[in-house]
Amino acid sequence: MNKHHLMAPGPTPVPHRVLEAMARPLIHHRTREFEAHFEGARRGLEWLFQTNGDVITLAASGSGGMEAAVANLLSPGDSALVIEGGKFGERWTELCAAYGVEADVLEVEWGRSVDMGVLEARLERGGHKALLMQASETSTGAKHDVQAVARVVRERSPDTLVVVDAITALGVYDLKVEEWDLDAVITGSQKALMLPPGLAFVWLSERAWRAASESTSPRYYFDLGIERKSQMKNTTAWTPAISLLAGLAVALDMMREEGLENIFARHARLARATGAAVEALGLAIFPRDLRSEAVTAVCVPEGVDGKAIPLRMQDAHGVTIAGGQDGLSGRIFRIGHLGYVDSSDVLATVGALESTLADLGYSLQRGCGLAAAQEVFDK
Amino acid sequence: MNKHHLMAPGPTPVPHRVLEAMARPLIHHRTREFEAHFEGARRGLEWLFQTNGDVITLAASGSGGMEAAVANLLSPGDSALVIEGGKFGERWTELCAAYGVEADVLEVEWGRSVDMGVLEARLERGGHKALLMQASETSTGAKHDVQAVARVVRERSPDTLVVVDAITALGVYDLKVEEWDLDAVITGSQKALMLPPGLAFVWLSERAWRAASESTSPRYYFDLGIERKSQMKNTTAWTPAISLLAGLAVALDMMREEGLENIFARHARLARATGAAVEALGLAIFPRDLRSEAVTAVCVPEGVDGKAIPLRMQDAHGVTIAGGQDGLSGRIFRIGHLGYVDSSDVLATVGALESTLADLGYSLQRGCGLAAAQEVFDK
Repeated sequence: MNKHHLMAPGPTPVPHRVLEAMARPLIHHRTREFEAHFEGARRGLEWLFQTNGDVITLAASGSGGMEAAVANLLSPGDSALVIEGGKFGERWTELCAAYGVEADVLEVEWGRSVDMGVLEARLERGGHKALLMQASETSTGAKHDVQAVARVVRERSPDTLVVVDAITALGVYDLKVEEWDLDAVITGSQKALMLPPGLAFVWLSERAWRAASESTSPRYYFDLGIERKSQMKNTTAWTPAISLLAGLAVALDMMREEGLENIFARHARLARATGAAVEALGLAIFPRDLRSEAVTAVCVPEGVDGKAIPLRMQDAHGVTIAGGQDGLSGRIFRIGHLGYVDSSDVLATVGALESTLADLGYSLQRGCGLAAAQEVFDK
Repeated sequence: MNKHHLMAPGPTPVPHRVLEAMARPLIHHRTREFEAHFEGARRGLEWLFQTNGDVITLAASGSGGMEAAVANLLSPGDSALVIEGGKFGERWTELCAAYGVEADVLEVEWGRSVDMGVLEARLERGGHKALLMQASETSTGAKHDVQAVARVVRERSPDTLVVVDAITALGVYDLKVEEWDLDAVITGSQKALMLPPGLAFVWLSERAWRAASESTSPRYYFDLGIERKSQMKNTTAWTPAISLLAGLAVALDMMREEGLENIFARHARLARATGAAVEALGLAIFPRDLRSEAVTAVCVPEGVDGKAIPLRMQDAHGVTIAGGQDGLSGRIFRIGHLGYVDSSDVLATVGALESTLADLGYSLQRGCGLAAAQEVFDK
């Protein structure tokens, strides 16, 4: 018997309270009961986003939220500066291509964080209607410094919209959405929000809402202006994902009970413990600049079959981690520690990792990863 | 104490078995376990759609599925013939406008079904890349004769794609998707499929797949070609709505246990019983030609406050029905009887309706609606 530990960088474990709420009989969405429920969730989202403005909820996964940002803020022929340092950076570029937006791609080596000097130089080209970036690049475990990026943009190109994919960042570490003067922030339900996938959330600044009113890109289901009109009245333009919204209210309650500062501190601690454990095992962390507190990406040690690591973790130990994607397949593995995750999950994961690596022929001193993790938790 | 009866034309009641499946801890979607699960669901969907081809699953509500059809099959400047006989017909027209498609609107009086002579004449105009229609117009309770429409299109304009919103039709009554030579059929999870909202399903004919490969409309999240490549390998391009898919497999199992013929017969019986009951109460059915087996739309009798009917049904009796939308607000009410609904739900609804109408000052002979419904069930 092995308990299952879902330690991927999304989807993340769903608490029983949330599962229970989603398992209740459905309520109809065109009722006062739903409206009261949805209003509570909207207030909770504003709290989580640290904003006074509307956070729009979409029945879609996070990629749908990214598409909504592109389709609402940019028009065919516009230019967007894309910080592309991983698979999700590439998604911005692909979205630009789909919508006829010229992507000025600032390539960042996978695993690195964007350099402010390079960014400043690139902004000199001018004409960027928006900058599209990840806060946390899930495919590499690297973080970009959103605050610094936003500051550089405001100094060098004040009208450029700062659009942040915060899918594995929001509710993981501090993103001061309004204080940093961001323009669009997107997240998804299956990350820090401790829900199954199926909801995307998009916040826009007033500057971005003005841009949305001028965009000529075709959109309907993802038209944020249409949704805003409905959601301000605590309803939705299209049929909402009612069961996921029932879970959302409970998940937000749990997050408020814990408190934002505690949530951020917990994720930081889980990331430090995971990082300390893998380093104590002689493994190298993949990101070289800023590490995301959501996911620890680890280099596969020489001589070990990298693709076998997640499979064996799953099959022999019941621990689901993620491998590398695309060019990183077999070269890294990724341990997610965001959302409904605590120290016991990290210990279970490190224990399973020690066994797995030993079984795959890697020479290590058993227990030293666990000891290093525990040392962080004991502090 | 009043048990809740969800008798809206969507969302519909979710069976306990399905709720339980959705309440299980999440599995990761990039695993062999998920792939095996998804393959089972795909086979079930093919059975439900009566087709050998791929049915694409999207994490979106039904409107997202409609948008996918427009964005994948039509290009800016194309012309589409829209059969517009209600609020969901209007949605096709709005989608055309959003995508720069010229909508040639064939207006059908709300509550009527499209006339084949009128349709033939309209097709004479030529140049229609697609015909967009509802199988069952949820806002009016009217049905269009999909088989007859498809036959007329094939005779008069063989290259026109027949695109059918079957959101409240598929799994309610017989739609011979391949035999009738349709090109696109869309449904959503929260109707006959007995699930919460959040999944849309789109089937395309080979003719439609060819059109999709030529369309120049911007699309990404709803790009059916991208999804098809992934789903043929039992995975999804974007993160799927995992918990809803867990429910989908169980719902499809339940539908297969009942059998398509029995499902269609049950819905026909529920519709006949509901219709007989309201007519026995002296009320008029709103649709004048073909009635949908999914929903019975009833004219509000003179002297009764139409908007009060659904509210009182809900508050005093725990029965959720729907009012009229837009121009029909206060003029009709709609009783849904699709999905996980049986004769006991109809009796509960008719009983509540009798009390509600009497309370609102309508003169009726108590019990005669119930007797008429029961007579249908006894046959």
